[in-house]
Amino acid sequence: MKSDIDALMKARNLDAIFVTGGEGQNVLRYYMTNGAALSGGYVIQKYGEKPMLIINPMEAEEAKKTGYAIRNYKELGAYSPYYLPAQERVEFWATCLREAGIESGCIGIYGQGELETYVELVKLANSHFVQYQFVGETGLTLFEEAFVTKDADEIAIMLSVAERTNDVMASAWDFIASHTADDSETVIKADGSPLTIADVKNHVRVELARRGLQDNGMTFAQGRDAGFPHSRGENSMALKLGQSIVFDLFPREIGGGYYHDMTRTWCIGYAPPQVQEAYDEVMQAFDIAIEDFAINKPLYTMQEAVQDFFEDKGHPTARSHPKTMEGYVHGLGHGVGLIIHERPSISHILRDDVWQVGNVVTIEPGLYYPDRGFGVRVEDFFVVSEKGELMSHTPFKKDLVLPLKDS
Amino acid sequence: MKSDIDALMKARNLDAIFVTGGEGQNVLRYYMTNGAALSGGYVIQKYGEKPMLIINPMEAEEAKKTGYAIRNYKELGAYSPYYLPAQERVEFWATCLREAGIESGCIGIYGQGELETYVELVKLANSHFVQYQFVGETGLTLFEEAFVTKDADEIAIMLSVAERTNDVMASAWDFIASHTADDSETVIKADGSPLTIADVKNHVRVELARRGLQDNGMTFAQGRDAGFPHSRGENSMALKLGQSIVFDLFPREIGGGYYHDMTRTWCIGYAPPQVQEAYDEVMQAFDIAIEDFAINKPLYTMQEAVQDFFEDKGHPTARSHPKTMEGYVHGLGHGVGLIIHERPSISHILRDDVWQVGNVVTIEPGLYYPDRGFGVRVEDFFVVSEKGELMSHTPFKKDLVLPLKDS
Repeated sequence: MKSDIDALMKARNLDAIFVTGGEGQNVLRYYMTNGAALSGGYVIQKYGEKPMLIINPMEAEEAKKTGYAIRNYKELGAYSPYYLPAQERVEFWATCLREAGIESGCIGIYGQGELETYVELVKLANSHFVQYQFVGETGLTLFEEAFVTKDADEIAIMLSVAERTNDVMASAWDFIASHTADDSETVIKADGSPLTIADVKNHVRVELARRGLQDNGMTFAQGRDAGFPHSRGENSMALKLGQSIVFDLFPREIGGGYYHDMTRTWCIGYAPPQVQEAYDEVMQAFDIAIEDFAINKPLYTMQEAVQDFFEDKGHPTARSHPKTMEGYVHGLGHGVGLIIHERPSISHILRDDVWQVGNVVTIEPGLYYPDRGFGVRVEDFFVVSEKGELMSHTPFKKDLVLPLKDS
Repeated sequence: MKSDIDALMKARNLDAIFVTGGEGQNVLRYYMTNGAALSGGYVIQKYGEKPMLIINPMEAEEAKKTGYAIRNYKELGAYSPYYLPAQERVEFWATCLREAGIESGCIGIYGQGELETYVELVKLANSHFVQYQFVGETGLTLFEEAFVTKDADEIAIMLSVAERTNDVMASAWDFIASHTADDSETVIKADGSPLTIADVKNHVRVELARRGLQDNGMTFAQGRDAGFPHSRGENSMALKLGQSIVFDLFPREIGGGYYHDMTRTWCIGYAPPQVQEAYDEVMQAFDIAIEDFAINKPLYTMQEAVQDFFEDKGHPTARSHPKTMEGYVHGLGHGVGLIIHERPSISHILRDDVWQVGNVVTIEPGLYYPDRGFGVRVEDFFVVSEKGELMSHTPFKKDLVLPLKDS
């Protein structure tokens, strides 16, 4: 978590971290400034000290909210560093580092930005300065490691996003349920026209916006499409009775911020036997996963327990059949935070992560059979509490069959 | 534009471009795949050929929509390249390049991603491979240059976003106008409680969502806050009569895509003389800017014409007083596309850009006096048409005074 940053710097022999990157929503800038609405600039943290922000002077009011030391571009002699030629730009980096009291040392460079530019800027800086060495990372990075656990402030925000996302999921259920079906098992609107995936997604997006959340590409995929874990669903497709619908909703706060992530599988009206069977197995897998949890235990055993179960039931898995596109084809879960997929991973491939207080993860078993025209996934969102317990924060019901009101 | 990519590669002596980067919304991946909903992977384009996509197998259905050649991770021997240790990961890059028919040469690496990781991966790749040299850029990059002009498909999408954004701006006007004011000049709701900036932003976000758009941090700043160009506005602040409100709306399509960008300044009920005067000067500056346009002419002369005008009127500018926080403190405009601020720039600092068919830009003169409690900015969105004309696509009215219905 954030309070670990000094220790993580020490473990990497860093004298400072230099967070930069492109304009706009920028995960590390957001994290280091506790969500200040800054569209550019740098965050510099000297080992053992608080961050200093280097900002566009137009954003002074936003920056002040952090309580950190602030210098603006113009004070340091630049109109905008983004406008400077490469040589002057890295010289401006040095100006900023000196301003933060860093005269020399090993500087970790971090951030999300244009790779093409920063690859060359770092090379240039390292050939230009004798007093500074700019370094990246080849393994689990400082921030990936920091993100593995969340502090109480972060978890409080995430639980609020969780609650609002569950409300939107409920609203989508009610919205669909308020319709009827025609003789061809097509769900129809009051005017007799088909209710489409686009209609549902629009409803969901409005309900998210009402709650200060934004969609980042939800999955609402029906039938064969539901059999591909990342198919987003075809907007023009009409909802039909008896088809599996995988609805994976992973919004975050408007303007950037913490994500939620949850999935439900629905069959409108009725569930065909093959979908019901797969669903029941996924729900059993879910229980097997939860039972595998213990604080300080590796996460990968949870994935292996679920793979054991699915393989026993005759399904190919990514372990038994590494190239399979059918059966249980993905990891069991992942950390969620400012990034939608982060560490820790519940994976048979990545085996290093162990359960810790402050982990925020999804658990999402699924079965996929596109050629049989269906897919099933159920995903809840969990926090490992101060007491070392795995607590679900996805209260919305897990019913498979979504009955229409008038049927 | 996109059809220039081969020529832009040739000018840089690149044998191929390798577009990579982090998960999620990723500008260059979006651009190269015409908006396919891919959350990861690579796009490789060999000089003179069409792109090849290297994808997560779960996203095969989305990738197929591009019509490009596709290979998935598993076919090429990786569960996910993001899970591979550094050495194996750059070896996977080489596997992908060979798959795209690139056995050797100079490879431009592009994308938005984790700088800390890619700085080291590129260094490693260049020390590991004799047949490939991975390079970035120090000047205007290939994609920055490509983005300077938009093709007809891109402009068609952007005009649709423009139309929807103007509709939302109109809806915000009507929403505010439907309220009344109390004796203290506070705008109030039917229940007598103040109408706040949060109320307006929530209204706007819902109206954006209804139209398939999402907010990325709109500015709705009143009074002194309006005097800071990038202040987003305080959610809890009640709207008051006679205060300048800068409303800068720059949404894009949900899930990533093309931006629109427009700004209006409003005074509810009435405009105080100092705001009216500044507003009239900003509108004159707007006309002066438009008059300066000519195809093939440098853009910076437009900024200088506006600076001449404001300086004549006694306002400090970023040219006359480089450190000023008052007066006319920013550039006159910028390109808009998949990035909210891109080239060409209407700036006195960047003087290389010339007007070309397919430019998509904003023009946004403003005056800022936070210590006097106000700011004014008006911003329209323009396309340089096939005929070489500067065409506005921001039809929404530019009235300063927003009258309440009942006043």
